[in-house]
Amino acid sequence: MPLIDKLLGRPLRSSEDSGEKIGVLAGVPIMGLDGLSSAAYGPEAALSVLIPLGLLGLNYITPITFLILALLCILYLSYRQTIAAYPTGGGSYTVAKENLGVKFGLLAGAALMLDYTLNVAVGISAGVGALVSAVPGLHTHILSLCLGFLGLITLINLRGVREAGMAFAFPTYLFAGSLGLVIVMGLLSGGLTGHVHPVVVPPSVLPATQAVTLWLLIRAFASGCTAMTGVEAVSNGVTAFAEPRVKNAQWTLTVIVGVLALLLAGIAVLCHGYHIDVMPEDDPRYQSVLSQMVGAVVGRGAFYFVTIGSVIAVVVLSANTSYAGFPRLCRLIAIDDYLPHSFALLGRRLVYSVGIVFLTGVAGILLVVFHGITDRLIPLFAVGAFLAFTLSQAGMVVHWLKNPGGTGKEKGLARVALTINAVGVVATGIALVVILVAKFAEGAWISILIIPALFALFLTIKRYYAQVARATHCPHPLDLSHNEPPVVVVPFGRWDVQTERALRFALRLSPDVIGVHVSVTADALPGTKDDQSDAQKLTAEEHDVTALWKREVETPAKAAGLRVPRLEVIPSPYRRVSKPMLEFINRVQIECGDRMVAVVIPELVETRWWELLLHNHLATTLKASLLVSGNHRIVVIDVPWYLTEDSLNPTSV
Amino acid sequence: MPLIDKLLGRPLRSSEDSGEKIGVLAGVPIMGLDGLSSAAYGPEAALSVLIPLGLLGLNYITPITFLILALLCILYLSYRQTIAAYPTGGGSYTVAKENLGVKFGLLAGAALMLDYTLNVAVGISAGVGALVSAVPGLHTHILSLCLGFLGLITLINLRGVREAGMAFAFPTYLFAGSLGLVIVMGLLSGGLTGHVHPVVVPPSVLPATQAVTLWLLIRAFASGCTAMTGVEAVSNGVTAFAEPRVKNAQWTLTVIVGVLALLLAGIAVLCHGYHIDVMPEDDPRYQSVLSQMVGAVVGRGAFYFVTIGSVIAVVVLSANTSYAGFPRLCRLIAIDDYLPHSFALLGRRLVYSVGIVFLTGVAGILLVVFHGITDRLIPLFAVGAFLAFTLSQAGMVVHWLKNPGGTGKEKGLARVALTINAVGVVATGIALVVILVAKFAEGAWISILIIPALFALFLTIKRYYAQVARATHCPHPLDLSHNEPPVVVVPFGRWDVQTERALRFALRLSPDVIGVHVSVTADALPGTKDDQSDAQKLTAEEHDVTALWKREVETPAKAAGLRVPRLEVIPSPYRRVSKPMLEFINRVQIECGDRMVAVVIPELVETRWWELLLHNHLATTLKASLLVSGNHRIVVIDVPWYLTEDSLNPTSV
Repeated sequence: MPLIDKLLGRPLRSSEDSGEKIGVLAGVPIMGLDGLSSAAYGPEAALSVLIPLGLLGLNYITPITFLILALLCILYLSYRQTIAAYPTGGGSYTVAKENLGVKFGLLAGAALMLDYTLNVAVGISAGVGALVSAVPGLHTHILSLCLGFLGLITLINLRGVREAGMAFAFPTYLFAGSLGLVIVMGLLSGGLTGHVHPVVVPPSVLPATQAVTLWLLIRAFASGCTAMTGVEAVSNGVTAFAEPRVKNAQWTLTVIVGVLALLLAGIAVLCHGYHIDVMPEDDPRYQSVLSQMVGAVVGRGAFYFVTIGSVIAVVVLSANTSYAGFPRLCRLIAIDDYLPHSFALLGRRLVYSVGIVFLTGVAGILLVVFHGITDRLIPLFAVGAFLAFTLSQAGMVVHWLKNPGGTGKEKGLARVALTINAVGVVATGIALVVILVAKFAEGAWISILIIPALFALFLTIKRYYAQVARATHCPHPLDLSHNEPPVVVVPFGRWDVQTERALRFALRLSPDVIGVHVSVTADALPGTKDDQSDAQKLTAEEHDVTALWKREVETPAKAAGLRVPRLEVIPSPYRRVSKPMLEFINRVQIECGDRMVAVVIPELVETRWWELLLHNHLATTLKASLLVSGNHRIVVIDVPWYLTEDSLNPTSV
Repeated sequence: MPLIDKLLGRPLRSSEDSGEKIGVLAGVPIMGLDGLSSAAYGPEAALSVLIPLGLLGLNYITPITFLILALLCILYLSYRQTIAAYPTGGGSYTVAKENLGVKFGLLAGAALMLDYTLNVAVGISAGVGALVSAVPGLHTHILSLCLGFLGLITLINLRGVREAGMAFAFPTYLFAGSLGLVIVMGLLSGGLTGHVHPVVVPPSVLPATQAVTLWLLIRAFASGCTAMTGVEAVSNGVTAFAEPRVKNAQWTLTVIVGVLALLLAGIAVLCHGYHIDVMPEDDPRYQSVLSQMVGAVVGRGAFYFVTIGSVIAVVVLSANTSYAGFPRLCRLIAIDDYLPHSFALLGRRLVYSVGIVFLTGVAGILLVVFHGITDRLIPLFAVGAFLAFTLSQAGMVVHWLKNPGGTGKEKGLARVALTINAVGVVATGIALVVILVAKFAEGAWISILIIPALFALFLTIKRYYAQVARATHCPHPLDLSHNEPPVVVVPFGRWDVQTERALRFALRLSPDVIGVHVSVTADALPGTKDDQSDAQKLTAEEHDVTALWKREVETPAKAAGLRVPRLEVIPSPYRRVSKPMLEFINRVQIECGDRMVAVVIPELVETRWWELLLHNHLATTLKASLLVSGNHRIVVIDVPWYLTEDSLNPTSV
């Protein structure tokens, strides 16, 4: 216990829940890391599509970025409204379910589950990739580093929401601060006017190999969008915030989206101004866009390394957003019976531990299967995110149609909100289609398989729970008629305290008691002679047991005026004990008609681990077999006897 | 089941035991592989000590070999007698125990267990070593090959004794036949006279670097002896033979020792005649003594490869002798309570599976730890073997002193036997001391630590079993006085068929029934609202459960004229179920004085594996916790309810 307390923190009372609530300062790192880390790879993703345009491509990056920012702005406004409308947590699942119907909710849920899961693997692997390209000596340890970071993030999240916020606050704010400072310095030293003097001159842009096409620009936009995931996290996790809950959540969303927008805009402008373009990754002098930009503005000093270090940290930790969103989403789905109920259980630190552990398991498998390099998964998760966005927006449109507001002012506000969400549906819907088409061959088609599969799984689980509820439903109060005593079977080996106790309990329970002894006819049992024939041995053993039964059981039962318990000796030619016992119990059950059969098992319980090695565990095996092969009419009664220090060393008492 | 049947063969009835008995033909490979394989490395081990003498060393190999053969002859005669005297299996353990006392028996047992275990690892690793030096391409797979052979030998032995005999017969007889043929050909073509014409000329012997000393000759003798282990196997396994048991065992021993003696003598004479000496292992042209000898006599043709192949096979399979001896030895020790009783259980194929699996486990660990190269373990196991030899001989001496024979002829025979065994004690005792002294620094000292440790373990286990027997001994017949009804506790979650059945059973058992509901006060439970305070939630849940209890339980109990069961609702601020339940049961136990407490647990049993994922297993956890933390006065009653296909889909009935 002390170890687990050290690792995970002491258990928290349910009533300590409010102490685990977060404010804006902790909310930004917990909910925002995924969104903010987009600044690190969104521009690079968009620019890499534009490589064939050469220098001309740089002219398009600013408009494309501003298109992306417009979409981000629509998402911001609409999620801000969602938070206010659903203060108990309004992820895409809830919003779509409540307004479009449960099937659309589940579709959004499946899409988001895919998105969150892939985000963990992709975030960690992207961060480790950046770290490895900065420190090439680590190249052979990619997978270990990935799994190490995964373990660390899991552990921090299992310790609770507040701890995660505190652990991740420093790198998040360092990232925003240092990158923001670089952008401001770059703009001041001529990034806006174009008369720049780079400290480290970026490599010259590759020559153009292709003319501008609309398709190329659309693909660049789609690639830029892939990084816009994670904006939904805040609206999904409103319940994690302290009161005033809605205000805190909205401010958190504002900070995240505001910082992200400023960073994206600044990076686009500086790339254009400093002529910074994506370098091919197979170039031995390869540097990321951000690395070139920071170098060009401030040179390769200590500040460069601090900034790039914080970028790497934020990309790795972007996986954490999934840990804020995924368990809460699964909990909501589980409460509605579409996922196993264990996803809804609060763990010792008041987080949904099953969801956290499950997420780590799946992400760990992905990392191992892809050897820690998961670039090819990126198109998959953008599909999930934008499908969820679109469904959530559509749900909000219906929400405003259903709640048009009573007073004039409310009506006006609702109409504005409706417009914003309607624009959102169209914008994210178009983006979804663009991503699907542009990224179809690169892997987006897999999402089209996985999301419906998850959807089908949800329905299957729901149907199963409904079946269980129907099967276990008891339509009447306690029925005490026909409550006859059961037939009691007591398996035993020899006459000892366990057997005595079991028989006492059995005779208390019912007048119909049968003692059963399985006769293992071989020299496997200590003490039997080798050169007797099987038949003789069985007879000898049978004879001994019968005499024992008469002496130790029948006589005292008669004396107490009880019905005399019956003895059965079962031969076991294959030296098994459980199987012939089960067969006998089945025979008894057939004989006794409607009555229950209670099997009273005398069990020797070892209290020290090494004692497990010294006993044969027939009682445990028998209990398990009875339970597995049993039926409604068999009851298993365990009469334990303990091998304690005292009972073993009576002199020490 | 079909898979395990294919792997291990169908289960055998105890009465099929006689069909599993072996004759001489199967006995030689099963019991003799360890002994016979000595021919492959005994001469090499002795010669390698003599390297510093150069050509002169070859003059000493014949006398040393004949000294070893004399010792082998004494061992043969004495074990032949032991077989006759102990037809139910007379290993060193039994002979020493019966004649010298149980402590000497255990000492011999510990020594043999060490010997057998190390023999598995050393035999396999030596064979694989030879294979790898013949096929250098396999060099990177040493450990995999070792573990592969280990697995194969284990599987064959788990299939039963007869199958092992059949599987190993071919390589054994091929080895004896081909090596015998080489020796005969070598002797005929001048090996006896010294006028030899080698087909492949062996490398010239290294020059002498040292003069002859007695110490060197003693060490050469000790090294030669290290290979003389395994002779004891037959006497230990007499019960494995078909009738006439003693004759079959004695003939098997005769064949093994006879073949071994002829091979050892032939090899010594040919080495001397052909000037074949050990080559340093670091020489790139390194060849074993046998390889040089076969090459010199018949050249490097097909026959060479057949012979050397059979040598490698026999060395690998020499590990099998341990599989014949070790499980039987452990069984004898377990029957006497000095090892866990599971070592005495006959498995599905009438072999002592636990011993086989245990031996494989330990040998596997040794192979993994030593990366498949276990040369350094050889001195350890010779100590074990010779300690066992000496104790067995000493036991036989006492046996003849106790049984001097009645008639004159018997007296004479007993006196001859006594003499043979007395010579045996002296010879093996001297060999033991020589080995201990000569090999002390090379690792024999470890045996001096391990054997007493095993000895101490035996005594501890015996003491434990005695304690258990005392603690569970029931000195009186069934005591039916004070057999009051127990206080019954029924934990439940909601009103369903499981709860109803459990309560019916509880009311049948005793008039004192308490229903217990653990109230988990958090939003972890589906359906509770988020924004109520804890206190309110508890009250609401408590209120619901109380109403349910009154309606479904109290009313019908009153109507049936029974005492009304009590309801307890326990709050659980840390959301645990088992722990507060256990605390409550402890309180009940204290309140109810001497009476038993029966806990009736309603359990939903899943019949399909994936259902395990969909339920929370509170019943299983509670049962396990009750058993672990329980005491003599708590009885656990499992009332199962089955989620069968029929109960889930009632329409399909």
